[in-house]
Amino acid sequence: MSPDGFISGRNPSRQEPLGEGGEALHEWGIASAAWREAHGKEGGERNVDSQLLQESIARAGATIMGKRMFGGGDGPWDKSWEGWWSDEPPFRHQVFVLTHHPREPLEKGETTFNFVEGIEPALEQARAVVAEGEDVVIGGGADVIQQYLKAGLVDELTIHLVPILLGGGVRLFGDDRGELECIRVVESPAVTHLTYRPAG
Amino acid sequence: MSPDGFISGRNPSRQEPLGEGGEALHEWGIASAAWREAHGKEGGERNVDSQLLQESIARAGATIMGKRMFGGGDGPWDKSWEGWWSDEPPFRHQVFVLTHHPREPLEKGETTFNFVEGIEPALEQARAVVAEGEDVVIGGGADVIQQYLKAGLVDELTIHLVPILLGGGVRLFGDDRGELECIRVVESPAVTHLTYRPAG
Repeated sequence: MSPDGFISGRNPSRQEPLGEGGEALHEWGIASAAWREAHGKEGGERNVDSQLLQESIARAGATIMGKRMFGGGDGPWDKSWEGWWSDEPPFRHQVFVLTHHPREPLEKGETTFNFVEGIEPALEQARAVVAEGEDVVIGGGADVIQQYLKAGLVDELTIHLVPILLGGGVRLFGDDRGELECIRVVESPAVTHLTYRPAG
Repeated sequence: MSPDGFISGRNPSRQEPLGEGGEALHEWGIASAAWREAHGKEGGERNVDSQLLQESIARAGATIMGKRMFGGGDGPWDKSWEGWWSDEPPFRHQVFVLTHHPREPLEKGETTFNFVEGIEPALEQARAVVAEGEDVVIGGGADVIQQYLKAGLVDELTIHLVPILLGGGVRLFGDDRGELECIRVVESPAVTHLTYRPAG
């Protein structure tokens, strides 16, 4: 997220899927050894950012995401469409894609995309597949995170705060009030990682 | 600021001048020994938050603020109105109040409020009165901070990030894009203090 509250910039396009300037929010991650390793690549930065990312990848046992993050549009979809992830998506676990139009699971490499209607059924199914001590990660987008926050189903919220002002775009938070507890701050020159626990 | 980007909440009123829930953004400051001392009071928390506030109070040689922060409304004002600060405001230095309706300076205790039109003249006058090594503080509100940021006149921006979601209200940032450099992070259970330097 940018300090002005955006997780992607204005005017997303094919050239700039994360909107104007939005790509910069991900630079620290993409440069990290942890991200490269998850994507089957060597090299990358071995710094505190990479270490934090490595830890969260290691703890992730399942991921929930919205349909747009999988790669679908808003309406019913062409079931031959396999999303915009590569043949070996970086998850390597069960992914639960929220949709009003469920379809058969899709296996890609070590990742299986499941298509589920409703945030609670998706969470239930994700919880059922994770091992003891593993996390269910709510990957995004913002609307999905907001729905889980509103339903009181989030244990921890980590914000990777990148020092760039985007001035517009998709906001992480909606118009709900809430109390948080800050349980961890990890800083580097590129990004401040803030972990909160929703209160109450 | 709240992580969702607000420096005061929705629906400010006489009972809740900082809007719904907005008061919580200031609790860490008001509880601190540094704030209490600046307001002529004893006691208070002596923690990392207080120390940081003490340092910035000690370095502040002049303050610039908008008319609403002084206590005026939007239009021309009744010149008998002396703002909402007490007879001994906590600044104890020259304050420059931005206004389209300049008036004679107002002395209150060790603080003098000067009334100046234009952000550049105000900064120039403030710079002229500070000693070597002292800061000119842009106190607020958000619109004033945004104007100085846009004009490229801000050397450092410190955000006191308080773990509460306000869901609406006055946003610190406007719709301008910009690059920052994070130069300091100080954390406590109550608040994360993030200091940025605008780039370029």
